Amino acid sequence: MISFLNLAELRQSDRKYSDIPVETEKLERCLEAARLAPSASNSQPWTFVAVNKNPLLNEVAKATVGPLNSFNNFVTQAPIIVAIVMEKPKMLTEWGGHVKKKEYPLIDIGIAAEHFCLQAAEDGLGTCMLGWFDEQKVKDLLSVPDEKNIPLLITLGYTPEGYKHRRKIRKSFDKTVHYNGYGKR
Amino acid sequence: MISFLNLAELRQSDRKYSDIPVETEKLERCLEAARLAPSASNSQPWTFVAVNKNPLLNEVAKATVGPLNSFNNFVTQAPIIVAIVMEKPKMLTEWGGHVKKKEYPLIDIGIAAEHFCLQAAEDGLGTCMLGWFDEQKVKDLLSVPDEKNIPLLITLGYTPEGYKHRRKIRKSFDKTVHYNGYGKR
Repeated sequence: MISFLNLAELRQSDRKYSDIPVETEKLERCLEAARLAPSASNSQPWTFVAVNKNPLLNEVAKATVGPLNSFNNFVTQAPIIVAIVMEKPKMLTEWGGHVKKKEYPLIDIGIAAEHFCLQAAEDGLGTCMLGWFDEQKVKDLLSVPDEKNIPLLITLGYTPEGYKHRRKIRKSFDKTVHYNGYGKR
Repeated sequence: MISFLNLAELRQSDRKYSDIPVETEKLERCLEAARLAPSASNSQPWTFVAVNKNPLLNEVAKATVGPLNSFNNFVTQAPIIVAIVMEKPKMLTEWGGHVKKKEYPLIDIGIAAEHFCLQAAEDGLGTCMLGWFDEQKVKDLLSVPDEKNIPLLITLGYTPEGYKHRRKIRKSFDKTVHYNGYGKR
């Protein structure tokens, strides 16, 4: 096992997948990691729909292709796509969100999605979170009730041999972290 | 080092803190883990304001006490509170968010916050994410510009000896995970 910082370094958005199928055990470990994620008031405002059967998989992939046509084209290579359906939070959280004008479930879904991706990275699998796709089309394809949303899709698969690990490009620590006041270093 | 699943099990919301101060090195490792978090289009729409000096720390803690007065009272014990300030994402992300009606930065902030908490758990520290607090008061205390928001605070500290690790209560795997269609097991 590697340290969490190394795991965070290892995880990256992978946009190329090989033909090697993903073991069910590994897929389910990623889903289990997501299931264990924390959420506001433990609402767990999510359902994970794992898509791994054609022609459905290919149809969902096609719904992610962007306006420039090549955008997201890699998604058709992924052997698995997981759709995260946003569920209603607990009433207390929903009320609190209204009062405080925060959509807590989106925060929660980010957390769960990242648990999925970190577990995948640990298991040698590649992932990419997708926020840009034809949501209505994906909802139709997966029979998701109209009143629910799908904030994210995640691709999952093995990357091809030689696929590059990139160094993270981030704002510097000093720019990102302030002490005891905004703008104070 | 432990497996990611074990780390996810280990991390919990800790609502009691001891007097032991947190080493700067450990605080900065948590912040570094958060800094490395992925975000839509790598926008990194966040600034972390770490508060560890009194009387400011105590003032921020008091701004989290809820309507029932005892709610969040534990926050006054935490030696460190980190405020996550939401920054504007890249223009493409902002435009995409408008078109797709998704507030991507909230998803990103959930991811970064969880990186912080997972790193803390690995280092034997306790954390609790707080979404309920007097945001205007915290903004005033930390000189956060009025147009920016603080979706989350995180408490950080050592838990007292004997503080209990709880078993996670979650919806079952079968309820949470569907295959190839919403509602399909």
